[in-house]
Amino acid sequence: MNLSGVILPLTTPFAGEAVDTAALAANIARYERHGLAGYLLLGSTGEAALLDEDEKLEVLRAARAAIPPGKLMLAGVGVESTRATVRLARAAGEAGADALLVLTPFFFRARMSADALRRHFETVADAAPVPLLLYNVPVHTSLVIPPAVVGELARHPNVAGLKDSSGDLPWLLDVLGRVPAGFRVLCGSAAAFASELAAGAVGAILAVGNALPEPLVELHRRHLAGDAASALALQKALIGPIRAIVNAFGITGIKAVMDLRGLRGGAPRPPLQPLAAAELAELRAELDRVVQAGLIKAASL
Amino acid sequence: MNLSGVILPLTTPFAGEAVDTAALAANIARYERHGLAGYLLLGSTGEAALLDEDEKLEVLRAARAAIPPGKLMLAGVGVESTRATVRLARAAGEAGADALLVLTPFFFRARMSADALRRHFETVADAAPVPLLLYNVPVHTSLVIPPAVVGELARHPNVAGLKDSSGDLPWLLDVLGRVPAGFRVLCGSAAAFASELAAGAVGAILAVGNALPEPLVELHRRHLAGDAASALALQKALIGPIRAIVNAFGITGIKAVMDLRGLRGGAPRPPLQPLAAAELAELRAELDRVVQAGLIKAASL
Amino acid sequence: MNLSGVILPLTTPFAGEAVDTAALAANIARYERHGLAGYLLLGSTGEAALLDEDEKLEVLRAARAAIPPGKLMLAGVGVESTRATVRLARAAGEAGADALLVLTPFFFRARMSADALRRHFETVADAAPVPLLLYNVPVHTSLVIPPAVVGELARHPNVAGLKDSSGDLPWLLDVLGRVPAGFRVLCGSAAAFASELAAGAVGAILAVGNALPEPLVELHRRHLAGDAASALALQKALIGPIRAIVNAFGITGIKAVMDLRGLRGGAPRPPLQPLAAAELAELRAELDRVVQAGLIKAASL
Amino acid sequence: MNLSGVILPLTTPFAGEAVDTAALAANIARYERHGLAGYLLLGSTGEAALLDEDEKLEVLRAARAAIPPGKLMLAGVGVESTRATVRLARAAGEAGADALLVLTPFFFRARMSADALRRHFETVADAAPVPLLLYNVPVHTSLVIPPAVVGELARHPNVAGLKDSSGDLPWLLDVLGRVPAGFRVLCGSAAAFASELAAGAVGAILAVGNALPEPLVELHRRHLAGDAASALALQKALIGPIRAIVNAFGITGIKAVMDLRGLRGGAPRPPLQPLAAAELAELRAELDRVVQAGLIKAASL
Repeated sequence: MNLSGVILPLTTPFAGEAVDTAALAANIARYERHGLAGYLLLGSTGEAALLDEDEKLEVLRAARAAIPPGKLMLAGVGVESTRATVRLARAAGEAGADALLVLTPFFFRARMSADALRRHFETVADAAPVPLLLYNVPVHTSLVIPPAVVGELARHPNVAGLKDSSGDLPWLLDVLGRVPAGFRVLCGSAAAFASELAAGAVGAILAVGNALPEPLVELHRRHLAGDAASALALQKALIGPIRAIVNAFGITGIKAVMDLRGLRGGAPRPPLQPLAAAELAELRAELDRVVQAGLIKAASL
Repeated sequence: MNLSGVILPLTTPFAGEAVDTAALAANIARYERHGLAGYLLLGSTGEAALLDEDEKLEVLRAARAAIPPGKLMLAGVGVESTRATVRLARAAGEAGADALLVLTPFFFRARMSADALRRHFETVADAAPVPLLLYNVPVHTSLVIPPAVVGELARHPNVAGLKDSSGDLPWLLDVLGRVPAGFRVLCGSAAAFASELAAGAVGAILAVGNALPEPLVELHRRHLAGDAASALALQKALIGPIRAIVNAFGITGIKAVMDLRGLRGGAPRPPLQPLAAAELAELRAELDRVVQAGLIKAASL
Repeated sequence: MNLSGVILPLTTPFAGEAVDTAALAANIARYERHGLAGYLLLGSTGEAALLDEDEKLEVLRAARAAIPPGKLMLAGVGVESTRATVRLARAAGEAGADALLVLTPFFFRARMSADALRRHFETVADAAPVPLLLYNVPVHTSLVIPPAVVGELARHPNVAGLKDSSGDLPWLLDVLGRVPAGFRVLCGSAAAFASELAAGAVGAILAVGNALPEPLVELHRRHLAGDAASALALQKALIGPIRAIVNAFGITGIKAVMDLRGLRGGAPRPPLQPLAAAELAELRAELDRVVQAGLIKAASL
Repeated sequence: MNLSGVILPLTTPFAGEAVDTAALAANIARYERHGLAGYLLLGSTGEAALLDEDEKLEVLRAARAAIPPGKLMLAGVGVESTRATVRLARAAGEAGADALLVLTPFFFRARMSADALRRHFETVADAAPVPLLLYNVPVHTSLVIPPAVVGELARHPNVAGLKDSSGDLPWLLDVLGRVPAGFRVLCGSAAAFASELAAGAVGAILAVGNALPEPLVELHRRHLAGDAASALALQKALIGPIRAIVNAFGITGIKAVMDLRGLRGGAPRPPLQPLAAAELAELRAELDRVVQAGLIKAASL
């Protein structure tokens, strides 16, 4: 399984109260022109936390049909209980996922000892029909997987790697010093992409890629070409847009920029609220700046 | 609806992978001897985060059958999406819940503005067949409901009150200065019980009550009797046991003490792990101290 | 030593770059009409962190001359090194302080173990010529004294009590369960004043008292009179002004309200900056509301 | 001024209660064999927070006499008040410092707005006789300088650069996108050294360098030689020792390893406490591992 490159954690479009699988397929068709390594469904950016279990499977099936055969499809299956995570992992495998992303359970974070986390991931890895990626995302979970736990889990034959959204390089280097050579790290923090590639990540799963896939693919290309300096220059140029879109407005901002670029973003599901007019105007201005800075060739994608 | 007194947020017993409704009924029967004001099912302590939706309804129906008619049954129905919370609220009403506890959505906490929170609770309150209690529980959610939002929601005819597990008296007093007279506050932090009663709470929903209901009921009795000093003395005596059981070991500790007292605690659902032998020994010693201090009359309940 | 009542942690007025001891004396003369229990010099509110050591002694000498004989004068002497704290403690005793406030050292907070904190306070208590109050102020120090450490230090003959600015009632009750009867707790969080009195505090040292001493003295009077309900009502009415003045603008806000009330507030020392015009207008409006609500009789003090 | 390379933030040796300038000079003489770019006195690692102002000047004068002429000497001069920082900056310049390190004031962190921070640094930069480095060290200050503030200050003719101890690459890249080409960044987080060099830092000021200077100098050499991969490999090998010495035991651990290596570490000043015997044994074992891993040639330096 080749995880090198930029994987998009797709947003989930809605039509009223329902998941809009046609819009999802339309988005995938547009993204296919841009050299992405694959797609993640049901990530944080996919509002997985707001989807029912049957909707999750509906999303996976629709996505698998829309994604070209042979192209990578990942599925986020981590929920709070080990049991439900196993159930989702199996269903996702049946629905055609090539690999699974499992976030740390966190509601009972005071009890999520190294041992509890290890047992959770092991149980899921044992049961999963396809390989698993650990998911470290403290911005949502307020919990960091101990590097030693990653090191142990990396020995499991069905644990293929890690998505790290912390942007914490010292933590990542600690992890990288403990895992075998084949263990893949995917960056989940757009502002840390170039730095994590330099440190040993093979690719990334980046929410902002739904809005601005082109410069992320280009950054990875420069890295592969050995041009660290120009990758870094592009990274610095991207910090502003990342802050203005993702840090300021989250998924709602990403979906709004998708709309501005001719994709099917739409409103998020409540309790997430659509942007106010003034916020939307800020994003429109930011998109203009991104075009003028040459980070993308045109506003439309 | 009379919310005065101590309400137990019942633990959920398991038999292997399944919910053990017989054990749940047995526990309720034992607790019925102890003067409690009612029961909450599907709270944090009920491991609601680890239950499937059909299991949740199974728990509610079994509990309603086991709880004496006329006695208060509350149900925790808050999940991340507004839509699923509404669905659960309706189902819980049908299953016989007298009131609903709705925690703040928190996965997307950076986007949970005052407006987003207010709309979420309003939508649920509009749809719910029985009254609703707001639930402020920053230890799990890393999010605090702004007092002004509580003040607005308190005007909704279907919002009956608030459970506050923060133990943050300045926050609570700010809230109490903004709500109408009939708005009920229930304390959710055992170490702050006497202080929140003194500040205006009418009762409490306390996890540690599963393990040690007697002194909590006694504390409330002293408060009602106007004996603030002796309520406070009992509160101070309870700080140690609260820390030793709940703060140290969470739900797992509470279930272990239930076992020690002859109730049906059992193991929590993974990823929660049972206690190690040494941890269990600590709890056994703590229970002895609680008996010797006269906080309960006998180890068995 | 009677610590019952409201003690003002006086602000330090400046005339240009220098400490303005005449203004300090003038403020004390005005406050003397209001039934305060005493004064603390060189607290956080006194900008002690921004004063040189010789200025600190200048402030203490001037204050002692201005405070009526027999009236309580406390001095904040806690700095990072144990050695310098001892030196300041001795100098403050010589300058006429009746008791000393010692905050937790915190720059090296990762190394401030229970043992390190206990040794620090013990060394200072051994050397201090007058009794010492421990000072728990996590908002500034990001560090909480473990209740067990307070319990041990409370046995020291020269440790008279504790100022707690955390507003954390569960923490305070844990402390109160571990200290002997004579140990005095002073509340340092204005929004928690009534609750901490109810829990066993004997008085308070409250920054907002520089701006609004009258209702704090009245709140304590109601508590002493056994009228917990009316103390609580006043507490709730004070939450808004406390947030608007102290939480919003800190020392700068307090000094600005002092100016509005005819006292000698003045500008804080840099890096603290004076308020913008719009911020000052907010405070003026808040002061009007405080008068209209009857919390103080007149804008001027 | 050439800031490229590894600068040691020297520890301050004590003889009883006094600063031991002879031991300081002896340490410098030993470090001089190891290819360091210079020395910082009065940094966090130098226990500056525990030194009196006259001791600070004593340290600077002794260090300047011991450091070879022409070799870089930096001085930490940041304290809470702008006024005292200016005074120290002038005195440090007179004592022969080539540049000054100024940390963010933080005691009143709620009031340290972008404007307040900018004014503080500008006032110090205007008055300082030698160039200034901004110092971002959230582990001690719980405060992060906004990147936009660094960008503005970088235009000041007397602001030469920044020491960043956050290890937060996204923050640093944000900063690097806002500063002119000549602005120097020095890494202050040993675990992020290779990553920050790759991102554009020219050197580092690293506490662990007091204990293990050799591999840090080697890491920088590999970076200069364009060998990013081998720099990264060395970085990964260093994560363990950094955690075992600095993260676990702070300055006390660094001083203890200095003792083990034949330097003059000694005890820190109270409230910092010396290590327990078991902790010292851990460090001895770690030092053995460091030798066996070939990170240093011999235990003694």
